[in-house]
Amino acid sequence: MPSSTSRNYIEATRGYGAEICFANSIQQAFETAHRLRDQGLALVHPFDDPLVAAGQGTVALEILHDLPSLSRIYISIGGGGLIAGMAAALKALKPDVHIVGVETVGADAMYRSRQSDQLIELKEITSIARTLGAPRVSEFTLSHVKKLVDELIVVSDHDTVEAMVYLLERTKTLVEPAGACCLAAARKQASSIGTNESTTILLCGGNSSVEDLSSWSKQFSASKC
Amino acid sequence: MPSSTSRNYIEATRGYGAEICFANSIQQAFETAHRLRDQGLALVHPFDDPLVAAGQGTVALEILHDLPSLSRIYISIGGGGLIAGMAAALKALKPDVHIVGVETVGADAMYRSRQSDQLIELKEITSIARTLGAPRVSEFTLSHVKKLVDELIVVSDHDTVEAMVYLLERTKTLVEPAGACCLAAARKQASSIGTNESTTILLCGGNSSVEDLSSWSKQFSASKC
Repeated sequence: MPSSTSRNYIEATRGYGAEICFANSIQQAFETAHRLRDQGLALVHPFDDPLVAAGQGTVALEILHDLPSLSRIYISIGGGGLIAGMAAALKALKPDVHIVGVETVGADAMYRSRQSDQLIELKEITSIARTLGAPRVSEFTLSHVKKLVDELIVVSDHDTVEAMVYLLERTKTLVEPAGACCLAAARKQASSIGTNESTTILLCGGNSSVEDLSSWSKQFSASKC
Repeated sequence: MPSSTSRNYIEATRGYGAEICFANSIQQAFETAHRLRDQGLALVHPFDDPLVAAGQGTVALEILHDLPSLSRIYISIGGGGLIAGMAAALKALKPDVHIVGVETVGADAMYRSRQSDQLIELKEITSIARTLGAPRVSEFTLSHVKKLVDELIVVSDHDTVEAMVYLLERTKTLVEPAGACCLAAARKQASSIGTNESTTILLCGGNSSVEDLSSWSKQFSASKC
């Protein structure tokens, strides 16, 4: 883990029994992970692995099971493994589902890569959505997004925090920016979503601490509803 | 509503279409409510009404439906309507369930009333658990508690906030102090709860704002887990 990792991640990971090696950056963390793999440990890549993506794709099976009428879905993109797996499952089973991939400004490696049709490396992740902060997506995930995802949208941290506060106060659910950005995206498109659409917003994580919440909410002085 | 009511309560109440009359205190709010009743509106008392308590008692039916093995339950007490209704249902259907009533220090009108066997009026509510802050319980709720509740426990605001942060960060659920105090009480008794017990903690509300959360978490610098 990069040593800048939030307290609550570190505590939760230790709570599940893991031993943590800290690194100065995400790049160094990957170097350490590769060294440990070479020593015989298993490396579970966060996104650039077809088996990881296939596993994440089962989320789509559960959604279709609960909501067979699904017609539109918002899925956020870090390195792109989750959306690659889900889009493969969705388009195989229900090709007419409209899939929207969501990133935040400053963590939009997929959007830029798709626009320029090549892997773009972000020099710096400036968004608060740290878990979307893969500096670069992969050939594997980019090709799935190009083939299977209908639309990409990039939302601001401000709109994301506003969605996060709404989810917390009105649905009592803590969702991290990497998940709340999907609600922000759906709100942005609300006027163009047909009333006959059956829309799902994937809220794919809740690893935010009370300190994160307080400081973001102040920083963006989110108007609350 | 007292004019000191939190922003999020006011916004949510207005969001559901209500017109709000503000009062300087909870006493004045009750006076206004009584005046409006005399003008022909219906008064739904928050706790001192057998029908309200009976309605709240259906929570116990739902719990027993989902968890027939229930043997121990923690329920918080404001004015005592919720626990009166739930205890009536539980003891009628499963007399051996151990019922623990929970209040916070500074909002413990029921504990004091039961101790002294008469209705005690709190001069001031000093706990952050505002929705437990009935300055006084009623003959109706006190008599139910005396007959049906096995044990009363009073926990600190500090332990309550610690439980609240735990619930938020580890279960991703926003619970207000009036609910989180039940987890604090169960934790306090954890060593004496048998491993064969089937314990339920009622988390009976989530009306806390992000500002509340930030300020309580700082105030009590809760150790987080």
